[in-house]
Amino acid sequence: MSAHISLITLGVGDVAKATAFYERLGFVKSKKASQDAVSFLQAGGVVLAIWSCEAQRDDAGANALWTGNGGIVVAQNVASERDVDALMAKAEAAGAHILKPAAKTFWGGYDGYFADPDGHVWEVAFNPHWALDEDGRIKLPE
Amino acid sequence: MSAHISLITLGVGDVAKATAFYERLGFVKSKKASQDAVSFLQAGGVVLAIWSCEAQRDDAGANALWTGNGGIVVAQNVASERDVDALMAKAEAAGAHILKPAAKTFWGGYDGYFADPDGHVWEVAFNPHWALDEDGRIKLPE
Repeated sequence: MSAHISLITLGVGDVAKATAFYERLGFVKSKKASQDAVSFLQAGGVVLAIWSCEAQRDDAGANALWTGNGGIVVAQNVASERDVDALMAKAEAAGAHILKPAAKTFWGGYDGYFADPDGHVWEVAFNPHWALDEDGRIKLPE
Repeated sequence: MSAHISLITLGVGDVAKATAFYERLGFVKSKKASQDAVSFLQAGGVVLAIWSCEAQRDDAGANALWTGNGGIVVAQNVASERDVDALMAKAEAAGAHILKPAAKTFWGGYDGYFADPDGHVWEVAFNPHWALDEDGRIKLPE
């Protein structure tokens, strides 16, 4: 699987209001994948996620380093925990700042966060609940 | 074509250095599509663009409003100038703040920018040089 972007998370003040905004633009929320606290909308070749700013910041372990970002996290989903470890190591070797070393998550997956040299925040994740196609694309249930 | 994300632009301090970082992570730069001032890298179902923060801010007409963003712009590429106008109107009706009304661009296309209610910056663009597939995905030349 080549390097890719799977998911973009927008950090917002009110998840329901922000979701309604994007639904008005024509994005379709996956009811099966979404919860009150987080919405997932299919957005062509990637998934658009809407989550609270605070939850996003805490999840990234980025309170002290939330400088270059402004509340958008770009994610690369990979096929296994081992792939998460490998990509986090590659990012660190390339000059990334590790925000949160890879670890098991509360949602049953495994992820880590890094900031690129300009401060943009990336999540590297393995999500056992979601299948990836050969290009690393997630297809949400409807 | 459904609502979608085509391209993510990271605003950076040094385009060459940032491009080298992402190449070390395995993203492949399209030599044909890229220039010194901007890199385009295929990233699965979307394109990862790397451009200077200043150029990005100026292009979005967002100097006074660059608050919620931090230098990531999410783009939806559509199939015609008329589709740009329609989507900009839909966004404004849904509560977006228009940063730059749609207009011809210096690169031969047509685009507009809006900020969503949380301040995240979106570009809506028609690029006559790039083909879109039925899901709104751009496939860069190699």
